[in-house]
Amino acid sequence: MKDVIRNHPRPSAELLERFSDQQPATLHESMGKRGALANDIRPAWFGTCVCGSALTVHCRPGDNIMLHKAVSLAQPGDVLVVSADGFTEAGMWGEIITVAAIEKGIRGIVTDGGVRDTMPIYKLGFPMYARGFSMKGTTKATGGTINQPIVIGGVQVKPGDIVVGDNDGVVVMPLEEAETILAAAIAREQNEASVMDRIRAGESTMDILGFQATYDRLGLSED
Amino acid sequence: MKDVIRNHPRPSAELLERFSDQQPATLHESMGKRGALANDIRPAWFGTCVCGSALTVHCRPGDNIMLHKAVSLAQPGDVLVVSADGFTEAGMWGEIITVAAIEKGIRGIVTDGGVRDTMPIYKLGFPMYARGFSMKGTTKATGGTINQPIVIGGVQVKPGDIVVGDNDGVVVMPLEEAETILAAAIAREQNEASVMDRIRAGESTMDILGFQATYDRLGLSED
Amino acid sequence: MKDVIRNHPRPSAELLERFSDQQPATLHESMGKRGALANDIRPAWFGTCVCGSALTVHCRPGDNIMLHKAVSLAQPGDVLVVSADGFTEAGMWGEIITVAAIEKGIRGIVTDGGVRDTMPIYKLGFPMYARGFSMKGTTKATGGTINQPIVIGGVQVKPGDIVVGDNDGVVVMPLEEAETILAAAIAREQNEASVMDRIRAGESTMDILGFQATYDRLGLSED
Amino acid sequence: MKDVIRNHPRPSAELLERFSDQQPATLHESMGKRGALANDIRPAWFGTCVCGSALTVHCRPGDNIMLHKAVSLAQPGDVLVVSADGFTEAGMWGEIITVAAIEKGIRGIVTDGGVRDTMPIYKLGFPMYARGFSMKGTTKATGGTINQPIVIGGVQVKPGDIVVGDNDGVVVMPLEEAETILAAAIAREQNEASVMDRIRAGESTMDILGFQATYDRLGLSED
Amino acid sequence: MKDVIRNHPRPSAELLERFSDQQPATLHESMGKRGALANDIRPAWFGTCVCGSALTVHCRPGDNIMLHKAVSLAQPGDVLVVSADGFTEAGMWGEIITVAAIEKGIRGIVTDGGVRDTMPIYKLGFPMYARGFSMKGTTKATGGTINQPIVIGGVQVKPGDIVVGDNDGVVVMPLEEAETILAAAIAREQNEASVMDRIRAGESTMDILGFQATYDRLGLSED
Amino acid sequence: MKDVIRNHPRPSAELLERFSDQQPATLHESMGKRGALANDIRPAWFGTCVCGSALTVHCRPGDNIMLHKAVSLAQPGDVLVVSADGFTEAGMWGEIITVAAIEKGIRGIVTDGGVRDTMPIYKLGFPMYARGFSMKGTTKATGGTINQPIVIGGVQVKPGDIVVGDNDGVVVMPLEEAETILAAAIAREQNEASVMDRIRAGESTMDILGFQATYDRLGLSED
Repeated sequence: MKDVIRNHPRPSAELLERFSDQQPATLHESMGKRGALANDIRPAWFGTCVCGSALTVHCRPGDNIMLHKAVSLAQPGDVLVVSADGFTEAGMWGEIITVAAIEKGIRGIVTDGGVRDTMPIYKLGFPMYARGFSMKGTTKATGGTINQPIVIGGVQVKPGDIVVGDNDGVVVMPLEEAETILAAAIAREQNEASVMDRIRAGESTMDILGFQATYDRLGLSED
Repeated sequence: MKDVIRNHPRPSAELLERFSDQQPATLHESMGKRGALANDIRPAWFGTCVCGSALTVHCRPGDNIMLHKAVSLAQPGDVLVVSADGFTEAGMWGEIITVAAIEKGIRGIVTDGGVRDTMPIYKLGFPMYARGFSMKGTTKATGGTINQPIVIGGVQVKPGDIVVGDNDGVVVMPLEEAETILAAAIAREQNEASVMDRIRAGESTMDILGFQATYDRLGLSED
Repeated sequence: MKDVIRNHPRPSAELLERFSDQQPATLHESMGKRGALANDIRPAWFGTCVCGSALTVHCRPGDNIMLHKAVSLAQPGDVLVVSADGFTEAGMWGEIITVAAIEKGIRGIVTDGGVRDTMPIYKLGFPMYARGFSMKGTTKATGGTINQPIVIGGVQVKPGDIVVGDNDGVVVMPLEEAETILAAAIAREQNEASVMDRIRAGESTMDILGFQATYDRLGLSED
Repeated sequence: MKDVIRNHPRPSAELLERFSDQQPATLHESMGKRGALANDIRPAWFGTCVCGSALTVHCRPGDNIMLHKAVSLAQPGDVLVVSADGFTEAGMWGEIITVAAIEKGIRGIVTDGGVRDTMPIYKLGFPMYARGFSMKGTTKATGGTINQPIVIGGVQVKPGDIVVGDNDGVVVMPLEEAETILAAAIAREQNEASVMDRIRAGESTMDILGFQATYDRLGLSED
Repeated sequence: MKDVIRNHPRPSAELLERFSDQQPATLHESMGKRGALANDIRPAWFGTCVCGSALTVHCRPGDNIMLHKAVSLAQPGDVLVVSADGFTEAGMWGEIITVAAIEKGIRGIVTDGGVRDTMPIYKLGFPMYARGFSMKGTTKATGGTINQPIVIGGVQVKPGDIVVGDNDGVVVMPLEEAETILAAAIAREQNEASVMDRIRAGESTMDILGFQATYDRLGLSED
Repeated sequence: MKDVIRNHPRPSAELLERFSDQQPATLHESMGKRGALANDIRPAWFGTCVCGSALTVHCRPGDNIMLHKAVSLAQPGDVLVVSADGFTEAGMWGEIITVAAIEKGIRGIVTDGGVRDTMPIYKLGFPMYARGFSMKGTTKATGGTINQPIVIGGVQVKPGDIVVGDNDGVVVMPLEEAETILAAAIAREQNEASVMDRIRAGESTMDILGFQATYDRLGLSED
């Protein structure tokens, strides 16, 4: 196993474009309730959205040299997906590396660690998802991996997987399932739009979605 | 004990109207420091406010069929108050059911579980208070209760109780104490306005509020 | 040891003015990675900033009489730094005392406890950093200390220390080190600006910051 | 509402005796899955058991004067059930008050706060359930309630309710339902003993408990 | 993808026997610092040890029908490794199913959910690792998976993987790497024994383990 | 400021001996309610006790080279007091370094990080207090400090301070206050023994400790 993989299959720009219209919750449902990161990985500000191709990094807690290396290997459309073993008392990501990331066309970062320089990064418009904020700095002394599979927020992420986030959190989809999931999500979305039309026309979700039959089987007592 | 109660006493629209001007902290103080839900039940975005009549629901963690049933039983002015046993790794509440709730005149949801579709619901302007966000879906397979008393955030809530929330969190008041609490809150608010006037005129809270005497009794040493 | 110290050395208004342009993360780095409060002490809303001289208070959990006393002793430019032993199920700070604090020229509050009346205080524009929100009130019955050294968020704070906060959190600097830290921060900031210029001109942080040599020493395998 | 109630109905010694053989989990199931305190209220050591009549106390966080008063009002067979608003950075209960409690025939304490002097109390054999340990002391300065209903661990507890705990945690049963719950628990226990006999004779829980039919309805795919 | 896989490759009894002498920390180090479950999955009592072959189960939070099915499919030497999406407010595992598991030769359970009936299970000597205790019962109404790969405690576990736990927690090793890891662990253990002999003979770990050279490179100042 | 201080004042063996009979809670009270570490730093097993002189260490999260250096500098009677910035997903301390510590006469370790090899260390009888357990290993690559003041569990600890722990947790006393605190603790202990005698003779803590007067001043209503 190599520690650092420089190249890996990536989704096309056109495929990412089609995913960028999708809500994470819909994608998560469309792939069989898989791929949603744990809910303590949160957007750094309300309204954050991200869509791109996973560039996976595993750092030691409180050391970010692998992030600098990862940025140097990145391509436009990548999103950094970074495990720091859940350590949030250091800001793994800051303003300078954000400027470098933007130059490279990186679209955002998703990490189970901490971030800093939130206000300048907010002004730069660079999406961040993290488990915490910390102004504390990092060492640059210990190795890790780049573009090996990692586990973050209870989900296994491989390089090139598709990453989509909004205020609900982040979902990750295997690249090889992308078209299938997208088709299912679009169908689901259309169906949901029609359900909402019927609700606005006065119908109940108990009937439209067939929950009444299930409810009846529960045998609950009513007054 | 019936699992599902379809009708219960509710506050009048006019009574709710009068509560909607009140701050939760003032109401909480005015009822003898009772009724405040635990502080991990937070507004889904800064600036969220809600005021209405409690429609209580107890769901199993990760199952929301009872919420669909509850919406079908709701009346204008209701606020869903939902215990999910504190489970936040599922989005119990989403966009479709929000559309249904708005059709019914439901004014918001308060839950110790998780919610999803935050951005569309934010755009719909529907108030949400929750312990977390999760895009993960729910089953519709297990029973619960509707309009039985529940305990949420360390407070017992009965159907028809008055629910008021702002950025500080949510307070719940027994319906039968509503007029007493409201009168006390209005008096308190007027008193507070006069205190603030006196502060702006140069007086100290130590004197206005009589804390100096208490402070002196503490017998603290000063330099 | 006196419980309450009424006077202590403070930074000059001019010194505070010069600190107000600085980012907490830069200051923290410039003092040798010290002084950053733990990351669960968070701004009450996105965009909060604060800069001032520490007026330290230790309260018993759920009792705020010492805060009222502290406000009466404050001078323009002070920031209240308040340990409540980490208790967040009470709102130690509210609207009335905020009005009193603004009259006194207090610039904000930093606490490991809870705060309330968030919306009115937001409208008043008074910066708050806290570990939580709670509408629950406090007693005014038990003593504490004012302007004794306290430990908050894992950092020891003395009265007159310089407090700077933004969305990353809060950093505290010993008054006697202020000029040294400020000079180091300004130098660091200028260096960072020049680094960002070089990044935008196409260089990599691996080269600019000399991380390539460190990375090579790690002996990681690459594909 | 009186702050302190000196007398209230209690279960008979004979009734408590019959409950002392029961497991909390069985009792919880037998009363319709109600009454179990939240799982962060834990026994102070492995093997702790308790059974008695609730004497309810609400203290301010970090103040235990109401506990001293409560001990003075206790009768043999009582268990102190104490809300400290979940504050665990103080030891509300220690060796001296334990000695006083043993003299009174108190059978144990259940609290959402912290305890101290664990080793001497362990040697005294006095059962404790708490959310944490802390050697920090308390004030004796602020009031509370005795024998009013309280909410602890998400459950409402009234004075005289029956309290049973083992290593699984603590369950509380309304006094007026005691005989019904006990009968159901004994029946359940006998049924469970017979189920375990059948398992040891080679049968599967899927068949004995009728889960196979439910499982089949789930329509899961098998290899 | 099938929901339930009835058969999968398992390690031989002889291989498990050889693993049962190993410490989890040594195994974790020997496989390149992989495989350790997150540290909130803890033994149910001090001194718990387990060694066996993973039988993986994914349940919905608060529903354990899949565990009953899994026990019916188990073979001697299996250890149940169970994701309940981290929900600890229900006891997924209790006395009756433990009796059934022991009959089947199951060696223990590892779960990110809650367990109950701790005292009877302790007496039965059945190892349990869990994130919490709860006496609250479960439904038997919603599906899951058996012997599909799951993620638990941040580690991906496949059926047939080797599971070893002691008081430090639980480590999981891919079956296909078993012999390699075991050989490395034995070598490591022998080396550690010799290091401890040298320490007892008066040498320092700084010299024996070569840390002095690293320490010198750090360039720290000493008095 | 030197990173590593090799020598510092220590309490005499005779002074430590006199402290070893004292309970942490009594010492904490006797020094004016100071010195108690936060209550999430817990003994590794029930019954753990420790008494010694603080040898302070600050490590980076997940790196323990400074601990090896610290052991090499230790003297009999020292207790390692170690800040790892609260990171618990690595075992900073294990069996080999314990053997080295025992050779040096070190009496225990207190850390806000994680430990491993719990069972072998338990058999070696070496006291450990930690925030968690983890079998995950550490790097030996980044510097820290030895015998500089550190903040751990919200308390500032200097080298040579006296450390006493039991099941309640750990208290730290400044060396220069040792005799004063010890005298106060012994007096307090004698007073407590006499209070317990009076309780056993039938008196109430309300009267013995003078709480009745305070209670009366609270003005609570009684039935």
